Amino acid sequence: MTQPIVLLAGGVGGARLAHGLQAHLGNRLVVVVNTADDVEQHGLTVSPDHDTVMYTLAGIDNREWGWGIAGETFNVTEMLERYGAETWFRLGDRDLATHIVRTARLRRGDRPTEIARDLQHALGVRAVILPMSDQPVRTEVLTDDGWLEFQDYFVRRHQEPEVRDVRFVGIEDATSTHEVDAALESAEAIVIAPSNPFVSVRPILSVAGIEAGLQTARSRGAPVVAVSGIVGGVALKGPADRMLVSLGHEASALGVARQYTGIADVFVLDRLDEALAAPIRELGLRTVVTDTIMAGDAGRARLAAEVLAAARGG
Amino acid sequence: MTQPIVLLAGGVGGARLAHGLQAHLGNRLVVVVNTADDVEQHGLTVSPDHDTVMYTLAGIDNREWGWGIAGETFNVTEMLERYGAETWFRLGDRDLATHIVRTARLRRGDRPTEIARDLQHALGVRAVILPMSDQPVRTEVLTDDGWLEFQDYFVRRHQEPEVRDVRFVGIEDATSTHEVDAALESAEAIVIAPSNPFVSVRPILSVAGIEAGLQTARSRGAPVVAVSGIVGGVALKGPADRMLVSLGHEASALGVARQYTGIADVFVLDRLDEALAAPIRELGLRTVVTDTIMAGDAGRARLAAEVLAAARGG
Repeated sequence: MTQPIVLLAGGVGGARLAHGLQAHLGNRLVVVVNTADDVEQHGLTVSPDHDTVMYTLAGIDNREWGWGIAGETFNVTEMLERYGAETWFRLGDRDLATHIVRTARLRRGDRPTEIARDLQHALGVRAVILPMSDQPVRTEVLTDDGWLEFQDYFVRRHQEPEVRDVRFVGIEDATSTHEVDAALESAEAIVIAPSNPFVSVRPILSVAGIEAGLQTARSRGAPVVAVSGIVGGVALKGPADRMLVSLGHEASALGVARQYTGIADVFVLDRLDEALAAPIRELGLRTVVTDTIMAGDAGRARLAAEVLAAARGG
Repeated sequence: MTQPIVLLAGGVGGARLAHGLQAHLGNRLVVVVNTADDVEQHGLTVSPDHDTVMYTLAGIDNREWGWGIAGETFNVTEMLERYGAETWFRLGDRDLATHIVRTARLRRGDRPTEIARDLQHALGVRAVILPMSDQPVRTEVLTDDGWLEFQDYFVRRHQEPEVRDVRFVGIEDATSTHEVDAALESAEAIVIAPSNPFVSVRPILSVAGIEAGLQTARSRGAPVVAVSGIVGGVALKGPADRMLVSLGHEASALGVARQYTGIADVFVLDRLDEALAAPIRELGLRTVVTDTIMAGDAGRARLAAEVLAAARGG
């Protein structure tokens, strides 16, 4: 079997790079997704990062909105509102089918990894998307209002509170799956997506077995390539820039690179941040400077090709 | 408090008479609905008779189809099909919101009666719709293929198999609620809807406490008025006519009346069946002959008025 490329990914940014990588790699791409921002809504288990990556790789993502499914409707949610349910986490009708199927199978005792595989197959996804763990982990952020569940902070409060600390509830009991272990063991390279270092990538690396698997891969020569999600000091998506500052770091590609010292070998940053390449190299990372903004399918495939070249050229 | 009129009802036929009665009685109407054809679909608890009555009393029923909600869409179901889920029980998007809310609350341990009340309030229903019991009961029918769950027979197999016997799984553990008991205790009259005697009305009467409550009401002078759902030997809706025959009865208003001897005092039958009034009176029932087909709001209100007159004239 050919060696997989393993991508560690959160939601939207990770999904776009995954889509570009899938164009080159097909089923050689294995995406390990963060599940620590999963959330229960109306008794249903929602797995936003997995589903964003899945819809994007299936080609049914809503590019206008940047989340959800193309042509989505909200008829269930409108009726839920009429029943007085809290609907700040707006679930589309087609998206709800995913959560209904997932929840019914979880209740029957099926593994999240198997459920995810069947959902992906049904939608014709070529790559493999693996939940980081089959055990539940839930990110919480410390704000001036105390500890908040991640989606309460992220969706309900529009990422407005300053984040003072981050914790992953349940992480002590979470272990990597044999599917994730196998992918890391045989990986040609590991890519860290331009996702939030604190709430997308860190939970994945905190699952028992995953950072160890990554280090084993590095020790046998498989490179780890990290892509900056901060360009010109600003997060392309989400609150990573403000979170860097409020957690005591620098809101820049350099600040991101510092999160990955001892983990990554290569760091991909935007031309706009070229001046940061030298200080990033001083951290012990090789640097690749390129256009990291992914415009359309072509932009995704181009960045993916440069990431793969960086891995192979390593 | 004014005395309620209690209607024992199944789905569509019961819902139409309930709608007519609500026009006259408002919140004096208490509908006790069959819950023995409830079904689990995709991990959600569906309560078809309750919801048909609720949507009809809320004025949002789909009159074109005779079931479901007006203007309903099926976007969730289309996606469920894509996931390979069995969708012979087609659930509309707005309808699904009802099942999602119900299931989430059942999982939290709330009583079906309280959940139903809150759903009805949210939709502005004036009457009170009470599940026959808070305990689960499930109708099964014996066919040449063995015992089938009711909705498997009713929806999936389009009522095609002959029904040799009927049983209510869980009925031994089902008791009436204090809400149903209170309604029967204070009832001015009890009406048995033109619903299927075997699979809509019989389960209600089989719940411990309900037939006893009805007989206590009769003994203090509250009349029980039953309405035939068979006109000219044909069921207005559903398989009651064929079920009467396969269970060894006559497919006629007389066959229906025989199911209610010792239970009802008055029997309402259609003009088309006027010749059956005499043999029905021989069963010990007073008869009212009228037009029992409910065309539109006016037809529903007219039959309801005649049923109320029959009860009060008793």
